[in-house]
Amino acid sequence: VLTDFVTYYIRRPSEGSIVVVTSKIVALGEERTADPKKRVEIIKAESEFALETKHTWLTIKDGTVMSSAGVDESNADGKLILLPKDSYAAAEKLRKVLKRKWKLKKLGVLITDSRLLPLRSGVVGIALGYAGFKGLRDYRGTKDIFGRVLKVSQTDVADSLATAAVLEMGEGKEQKPIALIQSAAVEFAEKVNRHELKMKIEDDVYYPLFKHVRGK
Amino acid sequence: VLTDFVTYYIRRPSEGSIVVVTSKIVALGEERTADPKKRVEIIKAESEFALETKHTWLTIKDGTVMSSAGVDESNADGKLILLPKDSYAAAEKLRKVLKRKWKLKKLGVLITDSRLLPLRSGVVGIALGYAGFKGLRDYRGTKDIFGRVLKVSQTDVADSLATAAVLEMGEGKEQKPIALIQSAAVEFAEKVNRHELKMKIEDDVYYPLFKHVRGK
Repeated sequence: VLTDFVTYYIRRPSEGSIVVVTSKIVALGEERTADPKKRVEIIKAESEFALETKHTWLTIKDGTVMSSAGVDESNADGKLILLPKDSYAAAEKLRKVLKRKWKLKKLGVLITDSRLLPLRSGVVGIALGYAGFKGLRDYRGTKDIFGRVLKVSQTDVADSLATAAVLEMGEGKEQKPIALIQSAAVEFAEKVNRHELKMKIEDDVYYPLFKHVRGK
Repeated sequence: VLTDFVTYYIRRPSEGSIVVVTSKIVALGEERTADPKKRVEIIKAESEFALETKHTWLTIKDGTVMSSAGVDESNADGKLILLPKDSYAAAEKLRKVLKRKWKLKKLGVLITDSRLLPLRSGVVGIALGYAGFKGLRDYRGTKDIFGRVLKVSQTDVADSLATAAVLEMGEGKEQKPIALIQSAAVEFAEKVNRHELKMKIEDDVYYPLFKHVRGK
């Protein structure tokens, strides 16, 4: 179903493209919907950490900080839409089918959602899962322009691509569920390490904020 | 100096473009450098909130959460580079000069830095200041595809553009200090509300995390 939807919307792209799909479409394909009356129950069940805040729930789901475990009521026709069951697996599955269908060697798939940044109004796109490219670019051990070895520099490629795509796909009535990224600064790879973006909470710069609160 | 640098690197773009400049170049133009021995002192002086964490300092500077108040040692030739004094003012100043020089009606300027997201490895780009376009897209009061009125949806356009640009500009030796964004989904405007992206800490979804800690 998802493949038909994608190939209906976009034609065979050039080598080295990334197909971006919103989590909503993937979740609908997986029939991940629920009764709005069960909202709080579901938010708690879907997340590893859940804390009620003034306007929403602050949650950690699959190691990712987001609002309300990604459970969404907008554009849902009266139902709640949950996130896909496993966005990395869904991305890889879609990539395999599209790659074969389009006879491409290098193809990426990226499943996106949106979230709030600390102290910022407005949401930005985030990568829930992806396949076919490296989500993290590593500069550690390379030198800066003055020849000094960089110690900590890594770029979060997957979230950056998701953010760019979600800006173009929009929200609300105008939302486009699919986008195509071409000629981005990305390294394609057949296998993805689904933990590469995850920072251990104890090592995280935000850890001192999390360690004082107990959710759920 | 900054204008010369920009016009050396890029030619007159088409109407509706956004010139992206890294904070580093702007800060160097303002001679915002310091002695590395004074690092901790400067991080504290530059930020409204500063908390030492395992690998770095978690700070709030100009209402924005970032590492070490943006004070950077990479690509700095032995000096610390601080952030620009006022990135919104710097963006507007640069925009005025470039607009006149290039005889353009619609031109944006965006000054970027990079930061870590909660529980994520790798940095993403962030908007420090901008001019010439709306940094926040507002869907509140509009309807979703099923006709239901959206209550909270806003998109953080400025940070999204910064994230896309920083991915392309890179880090380390390969870093390009300037980029050009063309035909983005942006509303151009002569005046910018420099507070539009700022979320009051008490209203923020992350507030429960911040309220338990005392920094500096």
